[in-house]
Amino acid sequence: MPSTARIALDAFGGDSCPGPEVDGALAAAKNGVNVTLVGDAAKLARALDKRGSWGELPITIQHAPEVITMHDGPAKAIRSKPDASMPMCFDLVRSGEADAAMSAGNSGAMLACGLFKYRRIKGIDRPAFVTSLPTRSKGWTVMLDVGANVECRPINFVQFAVMGAVYAQFKHGKPRPRVGLLANASEVSKGTELTRATHGLLAEHKSDAYEYVGYVEGGALYSGDVDVVVTDGFSGNIALKIAEATGRLIGTWLKDAVGRGGVTSKLGGLLMRGPFDELRGMLDPDSYGAAPLLGVQDVAFICHGGASPAAIGRALELAARSVDEELIPKLSTALAAAAPLFAAAKANPVSEGPNP
Amino acid sequence: MPSTARIALDAFGGDSCPGPEVDGALAAAKNGVNVTLVGDAAKLARALDKRGSWGELPITIQHAPEVITMHDGPAKAIRSKPDASMPMCFDLVRSGEADAAMSAGNSGAMLACGLFKYRRIKGIDRPAFVTSLPTRSKGWTVMLDVGANVECRPINFVQFAVMGAVYAQFKHGKPRPRVGLLANASEVSKGTELTRATHGLLAEHKSDAYEYVGYVEGGALYSGDVDVVVTDGFSGNIALKIAEATGRLIGTWLKDAVGRGGVTSKLGGLLMRGPFDELRGMLDPDSYGAAPLLGVQDVAFICHGGASPAAIGRALELAARSVDEELIPKLSTALAAAAPLFAAAKANPVSEGPNP
Repeated sequence: MPSTARIALDAFGGDSCPGPEVDGALAAAKNGVNVTLVGDAAKLARALDKRGSWGELPITIQHAPEVITMHDGPAKAIRSKPDASMPMCFDLVRSGEADAAMSAGNSGAMLACGLFKYRRIKGIDRPAFVTSLPTRSKGWTVMLDVGANVECRPINFVQFAVMGAVYAQFKHGKPRPRVGLLANASEVSKGTELTRATHGLLAEHKSDAYEYVGYVEGGALYSGDVDVVVTDGFSGNIALKIAEATGRLIGTWLKDAVGRGGVTSKLGGLLMRGPFDELRGMLDPDSYGAAPLLGVQDVAFICHGGASPAAIGRALELAARSVDEELIPKLSTALAAAAPLFAAAKANPVSEGPNP
Repeated sequence: MPSTARIALDAFGGDSCPGPEVDGALAAAKNGVNVTLVGDAAKLARALDKRGSWGELPITIQHAPEVITMHDGPAKAIRSKPDASMPMCFDLVRSGEADAAMSAGNSGAMLACGLFKYRRIKGIDRPAFVTSLPTRSKGWTVMLDVGANVECRPINFVQFAVMGAVYAQFKHGKPRPRVGLLANASEVSKGTELTRATHGLLAEHKSDAYEYVGYVEGGALYSGDVDVVVTDGFSGNIALKIAEATGRLIGTWLKDAVGRGGVTSKLGGLLMRGPFDELRGMLDPDSYGAAPLLGVQDVAFICHGGASPAAIGRALELAARSVDEELIPKLSTALAAAAPLFAAAKANPVSEGPNP
C-alpha cells in the first residue's frame, strides 16, 4: 500500500513503549507508509539501529523531550507539557509536516489535543472515538462514542450517527450502513429521555447515506444486524470493556477446562491449536484496531495501550488510507448535508440547558 | 432440600411455555419444593399427566384464564388482565396461599406486579432486578439493576448497594461483599454526575455489612475483584445482553473454526467435548439463574424467557431457599441500618427535581 500520507506516531504512548511503536513503524514503513516517530530522538535512533538497517525506509525521527503519562490530566497535554511526544504529533499535522497523528497513550489527552490543536469540524458539537467490533457473521460493527463524551444530548447522538455511517462506509465498505441506537430494549417507548428524543429525530430525518433502524440491544454489537451502534461514551466504554473481558474470561476458562480434562482434552487442545489461535486473535483487543477521533479537522487515531507491533503497523496503514481516501472531507460533506437534522436536534427540548 | 416454602409459578410466562415450567416444577418438587403451577388448569393437568404420575409430589394447580404476553404494557398486568397467570401468582402470595412468585415472562409486568401488589419495603425508592454473572475465578458477581430502573439517582444507587450486598451474602456466601460502582474509568473524577455523587455518599458512609471499593470498569463483571456491581437499569441491561451475546459469538465462531480446520480440528473438537460442553453451560444465560426483584415486601423471581426446565427447577429451589433463609427480613434489617446513608442521598443535590 504505497501512500504519500505522512503519519506522526507518538513513540512514547503505549504501555511497553517505544518497542511496539518502533516495530509497528518498521512494519508499516516496509509497506510504503511514511512514519515520523516522535519522542526521545537518541532512544529512538538506538531502538531503530538495534533492529537493523532502516535508512532506506520512509521513517524519520522527531525529537520530543517529554512524555504524557496515563496519570496526566487532559489539560497537561496542552498546557504543562507542550513539548511532549503526543501533542507534538498534532503540532506536526498543524504545521503541515504530517497528515495524521497517532498514539497508544492517554485517551483524555488525545481528546484534548484533537479539540484544541485540530479544532472541530464546522457544526460539530463533540467529537467521538469510534471502534470496530467483530460480528458473528464475520463482519464488523462500528460503535461510537467509546469514551470521549460521558454525558450526551440528542445533538451529539445524531452527529455520531452521521459520522459513524461515514466511517463504516470508509473502513468496512458498507454502501449504506444500518445505524442503530443502543438501548435497554427494542421498543422505542423504552430507553431514556435522551434515546427517545434521538429516535424521534433520526426516524423523522431520513437519509440516503444510512438507514436508521431504531433501538438495538447489547447483543446487536455482535449480531451483524447493524453496521453502526450509537451510544454515549459512558455506556460505550462499559460495552467495550465487557466485550474485552468476556473474551479473556472465556480464554482463561477454556484453558482451565482443558487442563482439568486430562490427557484426552490436552490432546484435543493440541489438535485444535489452529482454531484456538484464531479465536484468541479475534478476542484480542488488538483485532479491534485503532480508534479514530471523528469530528475534528484532521486525522487522529488512538491505539489500545497494549497494542502489539502488528496492531500498530495495521493502524498506521489505516491512518494512511484515511488520508489517501479523504476521510475528513467525506465527514465534512456528510455533516453539511445533515444540517436540517442537526438544527432539529439543537431545537429539541432535551438539549436545553448548559452542556454537561 | 425439603422446604416448607410454597412457590407460585406462572406456568405461561416463558417463550416455550408451559413445557419448561411444568418440567422445572416436577424437578423442584422431587427435591422437596412445594410448587403451585398457575395457568390454564386443563392444559396444566394434561401436561402433568403426560409426564407420568405426579400425585405424590408437592405440586398443585391454580387456574388462571388469561396470560400476560411480552407485548402487554406493565399496566395490563395489573388492570386489564387481573386474572392472568402472572398477577395471580402475586395475589396468591398476598393472600397467604404462597410464599414467593416466579415467572419467565414479561419483566415490565413483573416489576408492576411487585410494586403494586407487594408494595415496596419501607424506605425503598425503587426495587431492582439482580443477576449473577460467572467470574474468571469461578465465583460469581451480582449486578443490579439489570432492567427495572432506566434512569436513576443517588438514592437508588446507594439502596442498590445495600441490597446487592445482602443478596451476594445470601446467594453466594460472601461474608462482607465488596461493592463497586460501574463506570467508564477507575478514577473517581470520571464517571457521570450520578456516579460521582453516589461515590461521595458510599465513600463517606462506611458500612460493616459491605466494603465499598469505588468505581469499577466493565471488566470487573468477570474479574472476581468485586462481589456486587451497582449500575442503572439501562447500562445493566446493555451489560447483560453483551455478556450473553459475546458467549454466543464465541460459540458460533469456535464451531466454524473447528469446521474449517479439517479432520485434525474435528478430532480435536471431539476429544474436547467435555470442556466445550462445560463452556457452553457457563455461557448459557441459564447459568446466570433467576433474577429476584429486590426492594419489595415479598419474594419474586424472574427467569430468562428461554430458561430451560433445569434452570426453572434451580430457580424454584433458590426461591424456596430465599423464603426459608428469610431474605426479605434480612433486606429490611440492612435497609433500616443504612438510614443515615439514605438520608444523605436524598439530600444530595443530584437527587433534586421530580423522579424521572
